Amino acid sequence: MKFVANKDDLLNGIRIVERATVVKGLQPVLANVLIETVGENQIKLTATDFDLSITTIINATIETEGKYTLPAKKLGEILARLNDELIKFELKDSTITITGKKSKFDIIGISANEFPQVEENISEADCMEIETQPFTKAIRQVVSAAAGYETNNLLSGIVCQVNKNILEMAATDGNRLARVREVVKNTSTDSENPFEMLISSKVLAELSKISTLTESDIIKICKEQKKIVITIDKTKIITRLMQGQFPKYNQLIPQTFPKEAVLDKNSLISALERVAVMVNEKNSIVKFEFADNTLKLSGYSPDAGNSEDELDAKYTNEPLAIAFNYKFILEFLKIVEADEIKIQLNSPLSATVFAPCSDEDYIYLVMPVQLRN
Amino acid sequence: MKFVANKDDLLNGIRIVERATVVKGLQPVLANVLIETVGENQIKLTATDFDLSITTIINATIETEGKYTLPAKKLGEILARLNDELIKFELKDSTITITGKKSKFDIIGISANEFPQVEENISEADCMEIETQPFTKAIRQVVSAAAGYETNNLLSGIVCQVNKNILEMAATDGNRLARVREVVKNTSTDSENPFEMLISSKVLAELSKISTLTESDIIKICKEQKKIVITIDKTKIITRLMQGQFPKYNQLIPQTFPKEAVLDKNSLISALERVAVMVNEKNSIVKFEFADNTLKLSGYSPDAGNSEDELDAKYTNEPLAIAFNYKFILEFLKIVEADEIKIQLNSPLSATVFAPCSDEDYIYLVMPVQLRN
Repeated sequence: MKFVANKDDLLNGIRIVERATVVKGLQPVLANVLIETVGENQIKLTATDFDLSITTIINATIETEGKYTLPAKKLGEILARLNDELIKFELKDSTITITGKKSKFDIIGISANEFPQVEENISEADCMEIETQPFTKAIRQVVSAAAGYETNNLLSGIVCQVNKNILEMAATDGNRLARVREVVKNTSTDSENPFEMLISSKVLAELSKISTLTESDIIKICKEQKKIVITIDKTKIITRLMQGQFPKYNQLIPQTFPKEAVLDKNSLISALERVAVMVNEKNSIVKFEFADNTLKLSGYSPDAGNSEDELDAKYTNEPLAIAFNYKFILEFLKIVEADEIKIQLNSPLSATVFAPCSDEDYIYLVMPVQLRN
Repeated sequence: MKFVANKDDLLNGIRIVERATVVKGLQPVLANVLIETVGENQIKLTATDFDLSITTIINATIETEGKYTLPAKKLGEILARLNDELIKFELKDSTITITGKKSKFDIIGISANEFPQVEENISEADCMEIETQPFTKAIRQVVSAAAGYETNNLLSGIVCQVNKNILEMAATDGNRLARVREVVKNTSTDSENPFEMLISSKVLAELSKISTLTESDIIKICKEQKKIVITIDKTKIITRLMQGQFPKYNQLIPQTFPKEAVLDKNSLISALERVAVMVNEKNSIVKFEFADNTLKLSGYSPDAGNSEDELDAKYTNEPLAIAFNYKFILEFLKIVEADEIKIQLNSPLSATVFAPCSDEDYIYLVMPVQLRN
């Protein structure tokens, strides 16, 4: 194998695929990226952790065909430090020699035969195209509500539906639920059958980051019964479709609320962060007391003491005291793009909805915590 | 105890003294800062780890005298998050209540009786005053060459001498030696007796950081036989003088060198960082080969491969190959303020001097490593 490629393209490619490498696994080859020539003008980079595989294509001038694997981390470090525009790769025995103008590296790799087969082909029978920007924005808005990633936990997935020109995404870990709806153009689903899928939140979070490294306005998603391939520009993300029945989350969202408070988002963030200095680190509980156009927040830490803060709120209903894990609330507040947010309340033990005042289509439902006193 | 103080002053004071707290020690009170009223208009903050003590004075309006200790970290977190200009402190039972306009914290503390006695008074018989800027610059230039801090290791100290208007500072860990000389004004040592001291590099590094939080151009240093008190603005740093005979380092520095190379500093940093991707992590050896106006750097890692880089150098002596722990060289290069540096060489096993071309008074001597092949 021998080729010349642009350094920035190569580095960008490594940054994209290395998200699927396994750094300290049992199989050293999974820490590597597979580099293979494709025809006369391209090379393909591939990384996989079996669950998630990523491939990307880079332009190159191929002199001799071939394929080989190199440690992704070392290769990224080297490329990041090179000032040259063009880099030559040449395989000899078990090392690839990387040469710039005045720099030269011999990197020990592993044979491509040891690299797992990654099957990126998929039937084009069930595909859709969607705009990158609203799709990745929706991911960012719901991803924090998903449960921590575990292979067999459906709640670690994000459910995603495209019906005509409406995208709906949702995630829940049982304590909170985020749901977003966006109007999208350019979806190619037919109007009869909505496109539905349940994918690992980890994979979608990676997609959201990868999209910032690519230049495509459109994401193409194709699915078979167990497999999904997401194509963005020259990058393909291959993963399995999660199987099972996701909770019917729309039924969990109350339609009406007897009480509502409107608050300045940044004031609420500051006050929450102050009060949170003194909370029980085991449960992160902050008490919210709404009354007469004010919100009083308070925290209590058995070892350190307690805290209290008051801020203005538009609230004219009867007083209500309710408690939450403040981390859930802060995660929402730090993602939501709005100056004012509304909190829709019912009773101290009822599901409470946090939402931007400016956007009807994004809601963040949080279950309160029971207060002892 | 009851007082009102400016929030920024308090936070700055905590930032200064918390450097002497012991966060996870056997004595919980050492994680705390002692707060005590001084007369009608001041409070004093004190922290100590026994080896190093720091006190600082802050203006305040005292309503009731008293003293108490509070956890430095929690107190700093709270103050950093408050937007108020003035803060009220009030001691009741075992808690101090801190109140801003709309915020209130009850912090559980520990009685001042449990806090160790810090004796900041010292005889004024042996003192000097020195400008802050050249003194702290000299600390930064030598501190990385000191050995890691251990109570009984003289080489973890920095030796400091002021003779008339010349400040000389040096540190060595046995593998390298940094020495700096600066012309200073305003020293108040008498011309007969130079002022000499050996202080822990850790304490001087803290002093250098604390100086950025104070507004004084002058540092006053007083010493007794075993103790030293450094005063900068309203802050006092109290520590012990290290006892023993520091190596006669000036004798270790060769007076003449048969070979010399001149290099662009930033090019050398980039090339070293590239080559260092492939070094044996146990010894960090990079080989330097000087010949005919070039410097070739090379690294070798038994597992990962090897690296090579070439850069322009002004070098017209006969070729020389020599190897160093590249981390020592990078530490010097990242501190030194110069566009060009010179490397003064003798043989592959002789002490080598790195110095800025622009400054005769700062040298960084490094012992080479023996090359196997």
